[in-house]
Order: sequence, then structure tokens, then C-alpha cells
Amino acid sequence: MDQTKPMLVFQTDFTYKEGAVCAMYGVVKSVDRSLEIIDGTHELPQYDTWSASYRLYQSMKFWPKGTIFVSVVDPGVGTARRACVAKTTDGYYIVTPDNGALTHVKTFVGIEEVREIDETVNRLRGKGTEGVSIFHGRDLFGYCAARLASGIIDFEGVGPTYPVDEIVCHELLQPTAHDGVVEGIFEINDPNFGNLWTNIPLQMFLDQGFAYGDHLHVVIRHQGEVRYEDTVLFHHSFGMANKGDVMIYNNELMKVAMAVTMGNLCKTHNLDFGPDWTVTFSK
Amino acid sequence: MDQTKPMLVFQTDFTYKEGAVCAMYGVVKSVDRSLEIIDGTHELPQYDTWSASYRLYQSMKFWPKGTIFVSVVDPGVGTARRACVAKTTDGYYIVTPDNGALTHVKTFVGIEEVREIDETVNRLRGKGTEGVSIFHGRDLFGYCAARLASGIIDFEGVGPTYPVDEIVCHELLQPTAHDGVVEGIFEINDPNFGNLWTNIPLQMFLDQGFAYGDHLHVVIRHQGEVRYEDTVLFHHSFGMANKGDVMIYNNELMKVAMAVTMGNLCKTHNLDFGPDWTVTFSK
Amino acid sequence: MDQTKPMLVFQTDFTYKEGAVCAMYGVVKSVDRSLEIIDGTHELPQYDTWSASYRLYQSMKFWPKGTIFVSVVDPGVGTARRACVAKTTDGYYIVTPDNGALTHVKTFVGIEEVREIDETVNRLRGKGTEGVSIFHGRDLFGYCAARLASGIIDFEGVGPTYPVDEIVCHELLQPTAHDGVVEGIFEINDPNFGNLWTNIPLQMFLDQGFAYGDHLHVVIRHQGEVRYEDTVLFHHSFGMANKGDVMIYNNELMKVAMAVTMGNLCKTHNLDFGPDWTVTFSK
Repeated sequence: MDQTKPMLVFQTDFTYKEGAVCAMYGVVKSVDRSLEIIDGTHELPQYDTWSASYRLYQSMKFWPKGTIFVSVVDPGVGTARRACVAKTTDGYYIVTPDNGALTHVKTFVGIEEVREIDETVNRLRGKGTEGVSIFHGRDLFGYCAARLASGIIDFEGVGPTYPVDEIVCHELLQPTAHDGVVEGIFEINDPNFGNLWTNIPLQMFLDQGFAYGDHLHVVIRHQGEVRYEDTVLFHHSFGMANKGDVMIYNNELMKVAMAVTMGNLCKTHNLDFGPDWTVTFSK
Repeated sequence: MDQTKPMLVFQTDFTYKEGAVCAMYGVVKSVDRSLEIIDGTHELPQYDTWSASYRLYQSMKFWPKGTIFVSVVDPGVGTARRACVAKTTDGYYIVTPDNGALTHVKTFVGIEEVREIDETVNRLRGKGTEGVSIFHGRDLFGYCAARLASGIIDFEGVGPTYPVDEIVCHELLQPTAHDGVVEGIFEINDPNFGNLWTNIPLQMFLDQGFAYGDHLHVVIRHQGEVRYEDTVLFHHSFGMANKGDVMIYNNELMKVAMAVTMGNLCKTHNLDFGPDWTVTFSK
Repeated sequence: MDQTKPMLVFQTDFTYKEGAVCAMYGVVKSVDRSLEIIDGTHELPQYDTWSASYRLYQSMKFWPKGTIFVSVVDPGVGTARRACVAKTTDGYYIVTPDNGALTHVKTFVGIEEVREIDETVNRLRGKGTEGVSIFHGRDLFGYCAARLASGIIDFEGVGPTYPVDEIVCHELLQPTAHDGVVEGIFEINDPNFGNLWTNIPLQMFLDQGFAYGDHLHVVIRHQGEVRYEDTVLFHHSFGMANKGDVMIYNNELMKVAMAVTMGNLCKTHNLDFGPDWTVTFSK
């Protein structure tokens, strides 16, 4: 690998069940054999641009500056949605359809500049795929990202800039805290362990006088209807509660989260995430 | 990585659920630390040499010439089936059991020469696995491929050549087109998104006067019995149909395919692929 | 990659469904871009330190000496369980919570020295995760392993040594053989193909006069109750039995195992592994 060139970190909803990832990586390596490819994940929920946005935000800052992220969750492939490369204010690049996948990074990190990929320059040619409209991961995003990482093009070479304000974003809800009551939403889950992560920063808990070891009153509502209500331990890790108990903790991004110790909160209590799922904490 | 040596792209049905892939890659890295290993996929359907064949064909041409593919879907491991390395007419190598996995590449690309792996030379020794008959991915295919990539052996060093005509192939059915009727089979699916891919080249559609934007009459039969019949939009990408609608498009290999926009055709309509699944298109 | 530095082979129960692996690898690459990361597996059964132990044992010896394994199955994260780095007698390093994951390697290979990770030195700083207690894969194990691989610290730099005898181990049951009867347990499965692997070395079979081609009487008991009883072919590979038949073979580690040819033994006969599952073989 040529370590003077940025790494390419991929995240998609393709899975590894067929040959799509393999073909996409082949294109990258055919542009420049010396590029280093990293699997971010290929198991994002299908068509879920919200998860794409959250996962970028969750992992990006742990990578070396300059790293190029390629995110392909693309339900609108082949339609008028823009294909873009965004440069973040902290020095990363994100190659993605402009369909909401930049929501969290734009809001919580910042985007310095965004450019629409010029397909007349930065689309794969010569492999018989000129007439293909449904695999931009291979033909456009992967190919363009490889050219950028390789130095064949610079950021300007991606294509024309457009206003950062035009970037398509999902709505982000804000948590509230007053008089010992903190309210937010479950904004994402951990689909493996079944934990639920709120949009509430830990600091908001501390500011309301909640401390590790407290038992908090929790009410979870779906579209206003109570789906779970109990008094639950708030502590710093799962092992502070008994196996099978619900507990509150702060997650890897310093936001408030809930879990079942060595269990699965989502499945056990039939809970999910999204703007319809609100959660209220009080002493 | 030593970029003067070809990459090794692996595809198997092992999954990552246990230690098999890890052991296999360890053998490769013990032969030559400088070799570059790529995950093609380890989630091929179990024992499915047809899918192995299709996935090689789907992705191979996007890789740099000289790349070595290692394909291990091997229901006959330890029996008399040949273990081989094939050299394609366009300059790739495929290390695989000779059990049908070369069908598509042999037919649509061409195989220049094939050699049976000489186990007396190209099988792992010294790790206590001499008496193991069930893991040729680790002990034979991975090991031999690493030696070939490393330059320890050249292609002749794999073992004796045998006639290309003796390569084991599955039967390939040909689509037909006349008088505005195009008929083929669903020859594979996209197991992630639930799309079905026919064996009909897009050109055959165009030659019958079908054009993007047309609504075509589709009949899908399983063993002759009608399982789906409707008039369906033919267009260049999913987003041209409404969410939940069935549509016809040309896939990433320029063959005709069917999907449900942001849905799953196989599950929604209980359809599958194989020689028993025929599909007929007309205006 | 810098090939003078050891590779890092990761195994976890995180899956690739969200951003955890990506964040963890980002930390490694931020410590030292030139390190080579290998996916051992991220699909270990959740919280299953026994499987973590077995998979290390299964694959470790096939890697070049000096390779560093990072194993993170960590139900006790954030509690008093030790975080450690073990040096094996055959020259590998294992970075892991000391929670049973070293059982097989300690017993069958040997551990020369073990050190507790000093969190005051070898924990990630400066990324806002100082208050996070639930992701040691990223903040402690991955970070410490990267420092060790990079040469920033040597083995002594991990932290203070502690007695090898204090390493937490699961109980290992021993198989028995006398008068033509061999008895053991199913100690693990192949969760992909549904095979069951016993703790009985092949040599124990041979010593009792069992030979490939024999039909053996098999009794499988769960907590003493017979769950399967039949006469079954013992041979060297699956293809020696008919499709769908149960058969006995020696697995990739030269231990006795059982399978259904091109089928799934666990599912078909509702069998599982663990100390409660005993199996007896006789002629």
C-alpha cells in the first residue's frame, strides 16, 4: 500500500452475499493497485440513509485525517439525486449520494465544501457498463473515490461545487431538560446487541443532577402511547446491573443509552428507534 | 504488500461464523507475508457451485489482469473431483475444485489452460493437518494459490495440465427472441435485495424493439405453471417506478432483470431462480 | 504495510451491522497507518467466551510467529475483570479480557507470560471517550494492541505481569477410551454447516481399532438422556457418505466430528454442544 495516499473506508447496504462488493473493489484496485481499502460495513439496513448518516458520524473521527469515506446507500440510484463528494471541516472526505447520508456529519461536525461528481469525467469507462444505471457504487462512487485517493484528480477535479445549504438532510430532533426531567428520542439502535441509543448527551443528565448509581424513572412512548415504564439503574457499564436487567448507561459517543445486560432490549421489550419513539427520564 | 505479486481474491461458502477463514488466511500469510488478500465473499450459498460460477463471472473482469481468484465451494472435498488452477483467456487465474464453478467463465470468457493441483508438492505440510481431508480451502487451495502468487511456483508448477474440454460444467440455457417475444430463465438472484436476473442480454430486448419507458407483458412460469403475470414498466433504474412496484431493468452485467422498487421481488411474489423458472416478455 | 511489524488479527462478537468495528480499526490506523489489520471474525456468538477461546486455538498456529490476536468478547466490560495481553509459549500474543478466552490456548499450547493492561498508559485519549466504559475494543484492546504492534511499547510496556495460574479458565472435560468404547463431548459446532466437533483426538479412535470405512455405533446423550442413536459410517470426508446421511470424520484439527453430508446435523437432529452433550462410539 502507498501510505502517502488516503485510505478508502466503504460502507454500503450491499452485504457480502453476492459479487457486488467484489466488483466495486476490483474497480478501485484497477484504478490504483496501491490504494488501501477498508470495510467499514456492508450490512447497513437496506435503503436506510439515516443509518448511513449515523454510522459515518459514529466512526469518522477515529480515522486519520484525510481518510476518504465511501457511503453507498442509494435507493434513488439512476434518478436526479446528486452524487457528491463532501469535505468536512475536520479534514475528511465523504463520497456519497446526496440523500440524507450527510445529515449528522453536516450538523455535528460541519461540511466545508461539497462538489457534484462530474459523470463525464469520473465514471468508469471501457468495461461495458456505460449503459448500466443501477450500480453507482461500482461505476461512479468507487471509481471516483479511487481517482481522488490516487491523486489522479484533486478535490476540484470531482466536479462543480454547490452550496452546502443545498445538501439534503433528515430532520434532527433536539432533546430537552428542565426541572429534573430529560426527554429525547431513541435515534438509533445497536442492531447486534439490541441496545437503544438516545439523542441525549450525557452532560444533560449530569446537569440535571443524575449520577451513576441512581435509579431513574423511565417512560418510553411510541406515538405518545406508553410502551415501557419502570425504574431503572443508571450506571457506567452493563456489568453494574444483573444479567437480564434493563439499565441506562452512556454509550460510546457519550450519549445516554439503554440495554438489557447480556440480553436484547429491542427484542425483549419490543422497542425500536425513530422520531416516534420518545423517552423521558426523571428521578 | 508487494505489488509486484498478484492479489488473491477469495470466495467461499464458509461464512465468518467460525475460524475457518482465519486459519486459511493464516496459511497464505505464512507462505508469504507480503501477499494481499481480498474478501470477495464468504457468504456464497452452501454447496452451490452454480453461484460460485456466477459470482466469478460477475466480478472478475473488474480486477487487474493477473489477479488470482480462489473459489472454494466444495461439496466433494476429499473425493475424486479434481482440484485445479485455470488460466483464463483474458489473463486471470482461478484456483478451485473442478465441480462446475468454472461454467460461466469457460463459456463467456474462455479458459486457455487448466492444471490439476499436485498434492505432493502444493499441499500444506508441517502443521499436523496431513491427515485432514475436509478443509482443502486451507490445506490445498489457499496454500497453492499463495505459492503461485508469491512466485514460489509458476503456473506449470501447479501440476499437470489436462484438456480444457474435461472441465466440469453446468448446463447453460440460451434465451430466445422472435416476433416481439423474448424468453429466458432467471439464472441467479440478488440474495440481498431480492432481485432476479435473467439470462437475456439487454441487446435482445432492444433488437425486439423494446425501449426504456415501455410497459411489457411479463409471464413467469415455474415448471410450466404460471406464477406471475402482469404488465410491468421497463426502465433504466428502480427510481423510475413507484416504491413497491415491480419493474424491469438491465442489471450491472447488461442483462435483463426484475425488481420491486425498494422492496424484495423474490419474497413478495414467492419467486426463485434456476432452469425451472422461465420468464417471457412481450409488448 | 510495514511488514517488520506484526499483523493484528481481530475476533469479536460485534458483527458488521453498525459502526463499532469501523471505529475500532480507525483507532488502530490512527496509532500507526502502516499496521496490517486482518478480520479473524466479527461473528462470534454474543457473550460467548468459550467460542472465543476455541476460535483462537483453531486458527492461531497457522499464522506467522509474532502475530498479535485481539479477541473482544467482553460481557464484563467496565467491571473488575482484567484486561490482559498473553504471550504464548509458541510465540504469539493475545490481547483480550481475561474471562475464559484463553482456556484452550493455555491448556493445549501454553502461556509463557501474561500482563494486565495499564489503562493509565494504554487507553485512548483525546477523542472524547475518556468517560466511556462500554467499548474497550476501541478504547483499550485495539489501542493497546496497535501500540504493541507498532513498537511504541514493548511487551513490558503493556503493564504489570501477573501469575499465569490466575488466568480465568473454563473447565475442559477429557475424553475416555477403553475396551473399544470412546466417549467424549461435543465441545463446539461449526455454526455454518451445522457439524459437531468432539473433544476426542483421532488417535484415540485409531488406538481402539476404529478405521476409515467402519460403521460405528453412536449414542448421543443430553444430560444423560439419549437424543440420537444409530450406526454411522466413519470415513475421511463427507463425500464418502450419501447426501443426507450422518457420518463421522476427523475434523480440521484432527479431532473426531460428525456431520450430515451436504446437510446440517445440528438442525436435522436437534443437537447442540457443551458439557451436557456426551457422545459414545463403539463398533
